[in-house]
Amino acid sequence: MDLNRYIASVPDFPVPGVDFKDITPLLADVTAFDWTVEAMAATGRRVEATKVAGFDARGFLWSAPVARQLKLPMVPIRKAGKLPRDTATESYQGEYGAESVQLHRDAIVPGDAVLLVDDVIATGGAMRAGCRLVEELGARVAACAAVIRLTGLGAQKQLGDYEVVSLIDY
Amino acid sequence: MDLNRYIASVPDFPVPGVDFKDITPLLADVTAFDWTVEAMAATGRRVEATKVAGFDARGFLWSAPVARQLKLPMVPIRKAGKLPRDTATESYQGEYGAESVQLHRDAIVPGDAVLLVDDVIATGGAMRAGCRLVEELGARVAACAAVIRLTGLGAQKQLGDYEVVSLIDY
Repeated sequence: MDLNRYIASVPDFPVPGVDFKDITPLLADVTAFDWTVEAMAATGRRVEATKVAGFDARGFLWSAPVARQLKLPMVPIRKAGKLPRDTATESYQGEYGAESVQLHRDAIVPGDAVLLVDDVIATGGAMRAGCRLVEELGARVAACAAVIRLTGLGAQKQLGDYEVVSLIDY
Repeated sequence: MDLNRYIASVPDFPVPGVDFKDITPLLADVTAFDWTVEAMAATGRRVEATKVAGFDARGFLWSAPVARQLKLPMVPIRKAGKLPRDTATESYQGEYGAESVQLHRDAIVPGDAVLLVDDVIATGGAMRAGCRLVEELGARVAACAAVIRLTGLGAQKQLGDYEVVSLIDY
């Protein structure tokens, strides 16, 4: 599958100098989208994940169908202030500034092997923060999966301790 | 399916006086989540939808698997400033203040029959704004679907022109 056909590059969005990868054409193509979900699910099977965690907001577009495909529970990793019950929080330096992500404390339990899913890994900051949340709650990171990985923004260093599977690299 | 078992009510979140409906337990239950996806997909089949549009962010949790189930393209309706290409915008008064939503102008075309999907319909403002975007781009609203509909917040008046299907009402 030549996924590159379904990713639009938009220069200078959201800020000058950033070449934004737009995944909406991929969502609009039934065959290509299905292929990405199957590919991520295959990773989940291989690493024997017991839960799928997805990142707010575009990560949800993959984590929900991947979890359903695998018949596994889905856990949302949300931006700060969105989850209503007792949360664990991790802060990180994002591509455009300081950010933090949260996880409900009862969403992950010791013994879980979590497949973390996002659309794009850029700096790796969000994904690393998500991995730390999973570990803070006593569980294990099974793998990190993304549709797109941007190389050269430091993600390799941030995520060196984890298995990272991407479907297309830029 | 007694969905009520999988919805947590959290008082005074995000602001005092609001009884927040937390759908994360539903995501964590494989059978219940699957049931909700199948139910929304059944609506999409009945109304002969040609595209599924999902609302940023929690609406994505349902729109993506529903679109995949129906083998239909998925279109994200996003909060302002998130979509990188040429967009149409609609503003509305949300539960917590003024909001606006956007759709890529090339995502919907005349002839499309769009199933709009969100997790919760509260005031109906976001859903109505989404319907207007669809119509502005020359397409038809096939139906509005949500896991939860809160009655008494005005949604019935906002969405009187459209078919609204919810899986659980409060």
